[in-house]
Amino acid sequence: MPTTSRVAAIRHWLYMEGYDAIIIPSSDPHNSEYTPDRWKIREWATGFTGSAGTAVITRYDGALWTDSRYFIQAEQQLQNSPFELMREGVEGVPSMLEWLNQKLNAKDKVAFIGEMVSIKVFEEWLENSNLEFISVEDPFDYLWTDRPQDACNPMRIHLIDRAGEGVASKLQRIRDKFEKKDTTYLMLSDLSEIAWALNLRGSDVPYNPLFLSYLIIFDEGAMLFVNKRKLTAEVSEYLAENGIKVRDYQYFRTFIAAHYDRGQYYVITSSTNYDVIQYIERLGVDYDIFDSPVEEMRMYKNPTEQEGFRKAMRSDGVVLVKTLRWLSENVGSGNITEVNVAEKIKALREQMPDFRGESFETIAGYAANGAIVHYEATPADCATLKPEGLLLLDTGAHYQSGTTDVSRTIPLGPLGTEECKAYTLVLKGHIALARCRFPEGTVGLELDLAARYAMWQEGYDFGHGTGHGVGARLCVHEGPHQIRKNVRPCTLVPFKANMTVTNEPGIYVENQFGVRIENVLLCKEHRTTPYGKFLEFETLTLCPIATEPIIKEMMTTDEIQWLNNYNAWVQTTLDALLDDAADRAWLTQATKPI
Amino acid sequence: MPTTSRVAAIRHWLYMEGYDAIIIPSSDPHNSEYTPDRWKIREWATGFTGSAGTAVITRYDGALWTDSRYFIQAEQQLQNSPFELMREGVEGVPSMLEWLNQKLNAKDKVAFIGEMVSIKVFEEWLENSNLEFISVEDPFDYLWTDRPQDACNPMRIHLIDRAGEGVASKLQRIRDKFEKKDTTYLMLSDLSEIAWALNLRGSDVPYNPLFLSYLIIFDEGAMLFVNKRKLTAEVSEYLAENGIKVRDYQYFRTFIAAHYDRGQYYVITSSTNYDVIQYIERLGVDYDIFDSPVEEMRMYKNPTEQEGFRKAMRSDGVVLVKTLRWLSENVGSGNITEVNVAEKIKALREQMPDFRGESFETIAGYAANGAIVHYEATPADCATLKPEGLLLLDTGAHYQSGTTDVSRTIPLGPLGTEECKAYTLVLKGHIALARCRFPEGTVGLELDLAARYAMWQEGYDFGHGTGHGVGARLCVHEGPHQIRKNVRPCTLVPFKANMTVTNEPGIYVENQFGVRIENVLLCKEHRTTPYGKFLEFETLTLCPIATEPIIKEMMTTDEIQWLNNYNAWVQTTLDALLDDAADRAWLTQATKPI
Repeated sequence: MPTTSRVAAIRHWLYMEGYDAIIIPSSDPHNSEYTPDRWKIREWATGFTGSAGTAVITRYDGALWTDSRYFIQAEQQLQNSPFELMREGVEGVPSMLEWLNQKLNAKDKVAFIGEMVSIKVFEEWLENSNLEFISVEDPFDYLWTDRPQDACNPMRIHLIDRAGEGVASKLQRIRDKFEKKDTTYLMLSDLSEIAWALNLRGSDVPYNPLFLSYLIIFDEGAMLFVNKRKLTAEVSEYLAENGIKVRDYQYFRTFIAAHYDRGQYYVITSSTNYDVIQYIERLGVDYDIFDSPVEEMRMYKNPTEQEGFRKAMRSDGVVLVKTLRWLSENVGSGNITEVNVAEKIKALREQMPDFRGESFETIAGYAANGAIVHYEATPADCATLKPEGLLLLDTGAHYQSGTTDVSRTIPLGPLGTEECKAYTLVLKGHIALARCRFPEGTVGLELDLAARYAMWQEGYDFGHGTGHGVGARLCVHEGPHQIRKNVRPCTLVPFKANMTVTNEPGIYVENQFGVRIENVLLCKEHRTTPYGKFLEFETLTLCPIATEPIIKEMMTTDEIQWLNNYNAWVQTTLDALLDDAADRAWLTQATKPI
Repeated sequence: MPTTSRVAAIRHWLYMEGYDAIIIPSSDPHNSEYTPDRWKIREWATGFTGSAGTAVITRYDGALWTDSRYFIQAEQQLQNSPFELMREGVEGVPSMLEWLNQKLNAKDKVAFIGEMVSIKVFEEWLENSNLEFISVEDPFDYLWTDRPQDACNPMRIHLIDRAGEGVASKLQRIRDKFEKKDTTYLMLSDLSEIAWALNLRGSDVPYNPLFLSYLIIFDEGAMLFVNKRKLTAEVSEYLAENGIKVRDYQYFRTFIAAHYDRGQYYVITSSTNYDVIQYIERLGVDYDIFDSPVEEMRMYKNPTEQEGFRKAMRSDGVVLVKTLRWLSENVGSGNITEVNVAEKIKALREQMPDFRGESFETIAGYAANGAIVHYEATPADCATLKPEGLLLLDTGAHYQSGTTDVSRTIPLGPLGTEECKAYTLVLKGHIALARCRFPEGTVGLELDLAARYAMWQEGYDFGHGTGHGVGARLCVHEGPHQIRKNVRPCTLVPFKANMTVTNEPGIYVENQFGVRIENVLLCKEHRTTPYGKFLEFETLTLCPIATEPIIKEMMTTDEIQWLNNYNAWVQTTLDALLDDAADRAWLTQATKPI
């Protein structure tokens, strides 16, 4: 069914139900970043496959908002569709609410699926428009005839010798964050927070080791609402041992209904979906909404988790060296496509005993495709590599003990002057951030300048963030902090020791090439001086940074020294782990000092 | 009368009136930065003479909050006083409200002088405590027996060939910022906004060219409330020509009372004091409170104002060169004190025909005194300079066409290693900010890193801001924007072309020395690339930067080039303006490239 027919069906539904518009976000009942197939309604309705975007369909208009990562992709995928592309953050582009306010009249009825929208977002809508927003029963159960069912994959225990802290301790720390009334029920609905709190991992959501669930924490014990078919005998036993009762996911509302009149007081986190809160509200349950304390607790990695990151980086480093060597030896054949590169990495990862799945879809963008920030190559439509120009590779994986996220820009042969200049500027930004020492409490908005200063001098910039948190064997994009140039709550989070963050500046020259160099950093204490406590970053990622594209005269002595030290450390660490002498020889060559 | 007796008198008043505490901010009825002598109540009550600080006196306790600029000074001045020093921003130090909440019980009565507190601040108090805040009639009219009267100095016209925009145009632009009702009265109470809007200057407040007044802007014309004795014949005529009526300052409330029942709608700016708003509220006048649009209008300097800055910098540059030469020739005598330096600058400025007064009290801090950020030397208590170590000099002036603010750290002879290192780190930060190019809209919080990166690497930092706006022949500290490391509204203001900002990183080694290097910058368009519109800074200040303390190996080629270019520009520009061949010879020597 082409997009036009789908939109026609949705408009028919709007008409029959008496609504003037429907908002379709990219979300699920748990406010997840990557949505299970069942919840990819926005993708089904618009044809746009990017991970972030919100569609709105009125009776006569359609529009899709997405961010700069997806501008080029969305433009292509929305061609000849009923959707106008709205480039978020570009001057003159209306926000979704501004657009709705223009297109509709005050009090017009805007439908949304309450399960897909957090109370925070709903309140923003109310504040910024005079429209009526109506939570509706999900119409896509019948509009989307072949809508996928919920996934039902077995869960795994994230063992204490990898988690570093047991579930009893974590639950108690969560309880201690709240002033409690007589019978207090703390409700978590964010899947990553539940996985973190229970030291459990799942695979319901692609790339993120999560399982669809709600968790209610009592004064003693807790209750997990999850599809019981996901519980292996081992997991069931583990939950029982830890005093965690289990109910089926679908009985979550029933449980609340059965317990609302016994003086319970519900503490609800602000990412909880609107539908659940409405349900509780209608029951007349005593509740308050708070920002979840788990986000901050999860942000600080304990020593076991830190060591887990380092271990995962070693495994991924082995994979990356093998991939890069294979690439250097085979690019001349003229038979390697972008998709082959992604397949090769995956195949090599699958040989690692501790591999547990990729942490996001590998991006391999050759030449002009590298300029499409979140490019997805498909077997049907992907470039064949030539021994020239730049290949941008952004890839990551989950290992037993940790999660990785790395980008390298690989010279496949002769390069143009601008490619070398852009590469050097990105590298200078990467190094400035990696080396930066700063007082405890410095925020991501301030740190961002380190990554951009050099390229700004030359008139370059990039639209995406400079860094995001990385979960400990959890989601590869983890809040609440980011390093980026935009004033947002995430860029105003103070940095403290034991936080992870990526360091990934880039330059994208449209229709020509893209450069990005990304490592994962761990924030650590450096030293205390009369001027305060200073922090520094430890670079965790182990993968050679190519030196061929560097214009050495543009680098300072300090920068060159950092690069040589980094590559030497990569060489020393991975050499001991590589079986194949040819891999070791390649690595030695690739990490020679400049 | 010693502080203790003053506090006893205030406590007696608290007791008689039945209040539990009084808050005494450093302010006046117009929320001014520098307060007229009459309003220096906090200074009178505490003995602390710094420009920023808030005192609280309860029946049994006293405390004074001030920021890091004044920690050392406040510590000295509060010794043996009934006031505990509260270092703002230091971990573990309670905020004023936290402290009040601890010391008092809910519903206790806290007095304040409503004229000294803006509605914004009052609302913050209400939100963050359960105390009762009561606006009282100013008791210091009798507690402070020798309280000064209002100043009464003549006003001056800031001519159109210096202002660049006439009063009619400014008033119309202000009117256009508001949706108006039938009869709308726009009320301004910020003295700098009134001076800007009317192209008038006064001298009621030390260092700031302001006159105590309120301004009400009507649909046509405006009414200025000012002590009529300040009006020269020339100013009276100018106001009449521009359709601006004048009433005496004291009749401001009477005017409102006489006009509240004729359907007027008052638009009040949020810096207006609590007392005025309460008055309007009690009358039942129709009003709304908005952030003043004048702050943003004033922020962008027009081409005439920009040229005025450049002209003022040339005048001040001549003064500074003469001062520095005099210093270099006389420091060896052993007879020069810190106060002499300030006097010499002032005397030299008074020889310039366009000089109109200093823009703040000159700071001349020798050696350890340089580490006291807002040090005030007095003839009775000041250091004598020796031909060694560093002198920190921070000074500024108003000239006919513009305002200056400059800091230099001057080597008086042999220096220690740490002095040279700190000097070089400060200079590196200064240069990084001065050279920085950045996309339009970048905020001060992000730019701040440029000034601190180098010193943070070595464990140094400074507690004050990196930069503040400078008024066009107006206040030397002008909002709304700042460059600093703290997350505050002022650091989240987007930079655009035509804004001024200082560039003043520093390092202060307690009991040893202080370094600060400060120029005024003008933000300008650099160029537009495919990545957006980029801005850059033009350095306006003309004064040699000493090269003797520089550790050259710590500098990059780009940094050395910037410094040599800057000093060469200073030499070329000022050489033409210096009459004395000895001054010119000194300047040539001082600006030699390194």
